[in-house]
Amino acid sequence: MTNEMGAVRIAAEDLRGFAANILERTGLSPQDAKVAAAAIVESDLSGADGHGIFRLPQYVRRIRAGGINVAAKIKLAADAPSSAVVDGDNGLGHLVLSRATTLAVEKAAATGSAWIGVRGGNHAGAASVWAAAMLPHDMIGLYLAVGSANHMAPLGGIERLLSTNPIAIAVPTLDEPPVVLDMATTVAAYGKVKIAAQRGEMMPEGWMIDLEGRPLTDPKRAEEGLLVPSGGYKGYALAFVFGLLAGTLNDAAFGADVVDFNKDDVTPTNTGQAVLAISLARFGDVTAFKKRVDHIVRQMRNSARMPGVSAIHIPGEGRHACRDERSRDGVPIPAPLLAILNKLAADVGVPLLHG
Amino acid sequence: MTNEMGAVRIAAEDLRGFAANILERTGLSPQDAKVAAAAIVESDLSGADGHGIFRLPQYVRRIRAGGINVAAKIKLAADAPSSAVVDGDNGLGHLVLSRATTLAVEKAAATGSAWIGVRGGNHAGAASVWAAAMLPHDMIGLYLAVGSANHMAPLGGIERLLSTNPIAIAVPTLDEPPVVLDMATTVAAYGKVKIAAQRGEMMPEGWMIDLEGRPLTDPKRAEEGLLVPSGGYKGYALAFVFGLLAGTLNDAAFGADVVDFNKDDVTPTNTGQAVLAISLARFGDVTAFKKRVDHIVRQMRNSARMPGVSAIHIPGEGRHACRDERSRDGVPIPAPLLAILNKLAADVGVPLLHG
Repeated sequence: MTNEMGAVRIAAEDLRGFAANILERTGLSPQDAKVAAAAIVESDLSGADGHGIFRLPQYVRRIRAGGINVAAKIKLAADAPSSAVVDGDNGLGHLVLSRATTLAVEKAAATGSAWIGVRGGNHAGAASVWAAAMLPHDMIGLYLAVGSANHMAPLGGIERLLSTNPIAIAVPTLDEPPVVLDMATTVAAYGKVKIAAQRGEMMPEGWMIDLEGRPLTDPKRAEEGLLVPSGGYKGYALAFVFGLLAGTLNDAAFGADVVDFNKDDVTPTNTGQAVLAISLARFGDVTAFKKRVDHIVRQMRNSARMPGVSAIHIPGEGRHACRDERSRDGVPIPAPLLAILNKLAADVGVPLLHG
Repeated sequence: MTNEMGAVRIAAEDLRGFAANILERTGLSPQDAKVAAAAIVESDLSGADGHGIFRLPQYVRRIRAGGINVAAKIKLAADAPSSAVVDGDNGLGHLVLSRATTLAVEKAAATGSAWIGVRGGNHAGAASVWAAAMLPHDMIGLYLAVGSANHMAPLGGIERLLSTNPIAIAVPTLDEPPVVLDMATTVAAYGKVKIAAQRGEMMPEGWMIDLEGRPLTDPKRAEEGLLVPSGGYKGYALAFVFGLLAGTLNDAAFGADVVDFNKDDVTPTNTGQAVLAISLARFGDVTAFKKRVDHIVRQMRNSARMPGVSAIHIPGEGRHACRDERSRDGVPIPAPLLAILNKLAADVGVPLLHG
């Protein structure tokens, strides 16, 4: 997916229009289709290729199988001045998260900070998209999710009770790229395993282990193995606690209740997520804060390096550069993906994508 | 410090009384001394030996040198319904955090959740103490801190611009021990390095590197080296972002501005921390939530294990067992520490500790 050989460039706007057309044909209202399409393409712009338009065929398959409710009535299952639980009514994850982040921004603007839990949602694309959604509002954003398929066991265990449960945090800046962290609690996200399998490459040691704890490096055997938590016990503990916060707190699925959305198109996933917004204006002068972050970013970037190290990277700078480049030059769509998307377009009767 | 050979057991209550007497003699008000002493001994009860009464001589040294303000007027530098910035006026960290956590609980009870930033604080003991402070209020607690000395560089760098910036998260349960995560963003906390040095032991590879990136295993050479971030880039990025949230957001020290409180007793540290409280009652039925967490805990603990693995550990269960045991049998104080504490007691003229 990240291999650009044979890729065509498609303008983000065209990609959004394409995705919106397809989603509308599968039953979403024109407005919902537009909102969801924009959120999907945000993942592509950010460089999270495995979480963007690449997923559209899977979403459509799930919608057609009845596993996503295209007429979801998203509602508040709980509501307080600085918290809420959004019940997604099994709607498309992007619509549910759009509602949750909008609500977080509104409540944080009114009170200083807000924590919004989600249940009854679905896969919502790259984590960074929802943390970064707070940036234009001069807010810090945080996002946690229960991953949509369990590929990890508790440390020392062999039962797949945990997902890659990611965290994303976005912090506004003035002149520097926003600081955006987006990480799985596993060494490698499962998408990387799938890409290795597609390419016929072996995985490095450390990504996965088999059920006896030995390194598993053949991605074609991934189903027999387990993802390894990042930092050992620490990654396991983070995945556990993020699962409680993003899932259990909201009465969403966590642990054995997680539905593998790659294998099962029908059962509602009851996906759980959480967003936090912190309004900078309630902490002091907003511009002064952003200048302080710029200063820290430059201090780190310009600090002395080890021999052989060409650059010190700042979380989010790669994403920012990718957004700039793809907003200007279009999103690279590999030929095999283009074929799949255009087959889908032909199927539902909407205009094809052209590079 | 964790070596119990030659340790005497001292009842938590006696330890609190002892610490309160000493702090009062160094100039804290009786009420402040009592609050701080209780918070200090919380670290000991939790098993965080390097963060509890062990630090008292250092706090006293700093107070005497004028590096901590015993008459601090802790005030709110910013205040909103679900957020605030607590300015600690360079007071003892435990007093500042007591204020911040109390405020977080009050605001979260009123609004659902609250994020409180701290500046002008100091070292405040183990991270878990402040996350767990929310538990009796049926709230989830989160705590972030800028560590009190920089021992890490940005990934690929050699300048000590980052500390171990820890995170702690505490989640209430019904019958199970509360789930409590408490982790540094480095592979090893610096306290572990100090303990290895004290004991004359070598460190395992992976804890520290030298300035050319080679493993550094001799803890006596720790000053020449750098702590390694947990999970490589991920640990670095977490330390970076937690520093922005716990430090920069509140105009507290982060990066090059961090004062090494082990080496400098005089300069105000302007330590930054942050706490988040989430009120369970605003998310649904509190008991139902706690039962769900118990269920997840048991599901993980009772799941099948790899060959040779004797138990699956749940974050916080070790801490809980330690609290139970030490609350009952007393806190083990190694003979060398007892001697140091009693020398301090003789110095300031308060009754000695007896095992």
